[in-house]
Amino acid sequence: MPILNKDMTLCISLAGRPSNIGTRFHNHLYDELGLNFIYKAFSTDDIVGAIAGVRALGIRGCSVSMPFKEAVIPLVDVVESSAEAIGAVNTIVNDDGRLIASNTDVEAVASLIASNGLDSSLPVLVQGSGGMAKAVVAAFRSAGFTDLTVVARNTVAGPALAEQYGYRHVAVAEPGAAIIVNVTPLGMRGADADVQAFDDAVLEAAAVVFDVVAFPAETPLIIAARAAGKRVITGAEVIALQAAAQFEKYTGVAVTAEQVARASEFSRAE
Amino acid sequence: MPILNKDMTLCISLAGRPSNIGTRFHNHLYDELGLNFIYKAFSTDDIVGAIAGVRALGIRGCSVSMPFKEAVIPLVDVVESSAEAIGAVNTIVNDDGRLIASNTDVEAVASLIASNGLDSSLPVLVQGSGGMAKAVVAAFRSAGFTDLTVVARNTVAGPALAEQYGYRHVAVAEPGAAIIVNVTPLGMRGADADVQAFDDAVLEAAAVVFDVVAFPAETPLIIAARAAGKRVITGAEVIALQAAAQFEKYTGVAVTAEQVARASEFSRAE
Repeated sequence: MPILNKDMTLCISLAGRPSNIGTRFHNHLYDELGLNFIYKAFSTDDIVGAIAGVRALGIRGCSVSMPFKEAVIPLVDVVESSAEAIGAVNTIVNDDGRLIASNTDVEAVASLIASNGLDSSLPVLVQGSGGMAKAVVAAFRSAGFTDLTVVARNTVAGPALAEQYGYRHVAVAEPGAAIIVNVTPLGMRGADADVQAFDDAVLEAAAVVFDVVAFPAETPLIIAARAAGKRVITGAEVIALQAAAQFEKYTGVAVTAEQVARASEFSRAE
Repeated sequence: MPILNKDMTLCISLAGRPSNIGTRFHNHLYDELGLNFIYKAFSTDDIVGAIAGVRALGIRGCSVSMPFKEAVIPLVDVVESSAEAIGAVNTIVNDDGRLIASNTDVEAVASLIASNGLDSSLPVLVQGSGGMAKAVVAAFRSAGFTDLTVVARNTVAGPALAEQYGYRHVAVAEPGAAIIVNVTPLGMRGADADVQAFDDAVLEAAAVVFDVVAFPAETPLIIAARAAGKRVITGAEVIALQAAAQFEKYTGVAVTAEQVARASEFSRAE
């Protein structure tokens, strides 16, 4: 192991239950790009003290996960629109003592909407009502989409999310939307791995199928959508984009899609 | 570079102007011993926030240098006698959220007094009145030495130090002490590199010559003492012992003198 040095810039993550993915992703890129940085995941039971530590120790970047995404808002100096839009932060940059909070999930979804040339006049179905569903809905909202329906069995969170952004809520998806987005765990590795998040009729009526589930990237929904010749956007793309955005904010160094893909693959392989 | 992982235990140092020595010393030993630890030096202008960060992030160990050695005392939970004795901390161990402060300089000097079998009835001269002189005097005090003279041209700090531990102060060293200890920068690499810290008459009367200057280990005083056949204790021994003590407190792993010597050599060679 090459020896660390005192001048290395530290970036961290704060999560209730940290995974190893961020630590491997960022350090892999530091190594590949020859940057004098290190990255390590932390947990904490004192978010105020942890953010005080970020300031006092000059920690350059801090990725924020559950359950701290809202709690950090009063602890930073600037909340950018991506985080403001959903009241949740996943990224803090320490700019010479000034803490700037953003949400790269919102930025990543917005960027995929743009790069896939999605037409803002098309009707959208977003299935889910959790934190990531909020990020997706906010991104469609800021991209100018006016016809969006939140699909959620949760009759509290679902209507609340729809209402917050001026959209409709339904309990069960019906065919008709050109863009369908799954932001539930359906199709995710685990209990619901075999479940196709939208039924065949809804899928058939769509032109674009976006599944935010990233593990696996090829969910039953994505597999069926590819087979049916639909345009497909995967959760793996969201994760890679948001991680690249964090990386660039922390280091000031831009990364290519290939570098992100390699680091991303490395980060999952252990 | 092998990739860091989320489970690595972080130890840090806090100093106004960090050197690279601690970072290299500890990481070298982690590597040699296969410990899942990393160590990095930090500076800060907010010691309260930094210690809050140590707690909140579960940082396991924190080495403390100037100008924070006194300031951390009210911020920890337990002050051990080695730090209490001189009102200065150089080591904090985070034991599951309980911060325990000690001073491994005092511990190292005490350990050298014991391992060299120094007789507590012998008269001692300690030249110097700074923080490290305090550590040396406190260690002799707790080893039961009753006849100790503080030599210091500083007529405020010198008498104050002597008085605090119930000893005498003189402005200029006179021959007669069996144990002579230099805790000034005389003989240190730099402006006073050529100066022998005690004159020949004082040296001649002594049986044991202890020079706390560590860079170089072979000061003019040590060279002359060896030539005269005196028992010699060097600053390099103090540094190595105190660093090993910190290492063992942080990791719970004991290190051999050879491992410390190798890490110490590595830490200085860059």
